[in-house]
Amino acid sequence: MQKQGILIVFSGPSGVGKGSICRALIKEDPSILLSVSATTRSPRNGEVHGVDYYFLDTKSFQKMIEEDELLEWAEVYGHYYGTPYRFLQEALDRGNDVILEIDIQGALQVKERFPMAVLIFVVPPSRLALESRLRARGTDSNEEIEKRLRCIECEIKMACHYDYIVINDELPRALATVRAIITAEKARSQRCQFLLRDLLS
Amino acid sequence: MQKQGILIVFSGPSGVGKGSICRALIKEDPSILLSVSATTRSPRNGEVHGVDYYFLDTKSFQKMIEEDELLEWAEVYGHYYGTPYRFLQEALDRGNDVILEIDIQGALQVKERFPMAVLIFVVPPSRLALESRLRARGTDSNEEIEKRLRCIECEIKMACHYDYIVINDELPRALATVRAIITAEKARSQRCQFLLRDLLS
Repeated sequence: MQKQGILIVFSGPSGVGKGSICRALIKEDPSILLSVSATTRSPRNGEVHGVDYYFLDTKSFQKMIEEDELLEWAEVYGHYYGTPYRFLQEALDRGNDVILEIDIQGALQVKERFPMAVLIFVVPPSRLALESRLRARGTDSNEEIEKRLRCIECEIKMACHYDYIVINDELPRALATVRAIITAEKARSQRCQFLLRDLLS
Repeated sequence: MQKQGILIVFSGPSGVGKGSICRALIKEDPSILLSVSATTRSPRNGEVHGVDYYFLDTKSFQKMIEEDELLEWAEVYGHYYGTPYRFLQEALDRGNDVILEIDIQGALQVKERFPMAVLIFVVPPSRLALESRLRARGTDSNEEIEKRLRCIECEIKMACHYDYIVINDELPRALATVRAIITAEKARSQRCQFLLRDLLS
């Protein structure tokens, strides 16, 4: 039996730098795949269909819901977001680790269907640091930034449902912690039963 | 509130190289402390009282049991082994990580009293590799080696109760995995609640 890949789910406040962590992980290990989500929100500058997201109209998205093709989906800030199921399951079966970058509601839905999924919540070193990053990113309106900041408290309260908390103060340090988490999870005894069977046979 | 240290428990078949892993960990990070066990077995060549073990006579050991000064104790191969409680608790409270190298019965007793203890089971790459190492060590009689080898099957069957399985094929690789486990465990959300409180305050 081939060893299954690990499903690694990243969440955290908007602007915390989840995207940078995920991109760096994939860059240094091409066997790690990024699951591409579907969404009904408009592409931001430079975002590419099929790479950053599958940009769908509302009707197409609702059809995927009806036909049970989404592992999880949610409406966030008035837009739909969801994870197509098939790509993910096939990649895990091939032994690839798969990264999902999704919101809290979605992450908790994923954990129900994949109890061995590893949930990582990325937090900023401080609330102020997060606000600066959101403004520096320059992709959201003032109104949108205010809305995101108001949500942070609720989001952080949900972090206790995650397996790990990673502070993104400096990217190299956060990345080292995430790498350690992946290495450690590969040594989890639930994932290593085949090893023990080999030793006993 | 000061951050508590992590209690890391190592078990595995005799001769698998747990001792080498523990010594290397302590050498590279002096804040990690090794809990010294008490035993009634005789010192091997070069073993020092208070460093390798507290070598006690049976009467003194039984007194420690009666006065509840042991976190766990067990009789293995006709000798008593146990973990003095006070040193360990004080070190964890000071924020030091503490390593325990004990047998399976002891490890499971520790997990009951310290549910956040991290249990690591070290396995050889193969049964043959383990036998060679036991013979090369030259500290045990043939009869003792045979006895140890007969126990391995039961021991490995108990490994599923541990949190992690680490293969000791090459020391540097096993050590890297253990280091990753320690880093990952420090990011476990149950250990990081103080971080979330700071972010909310």
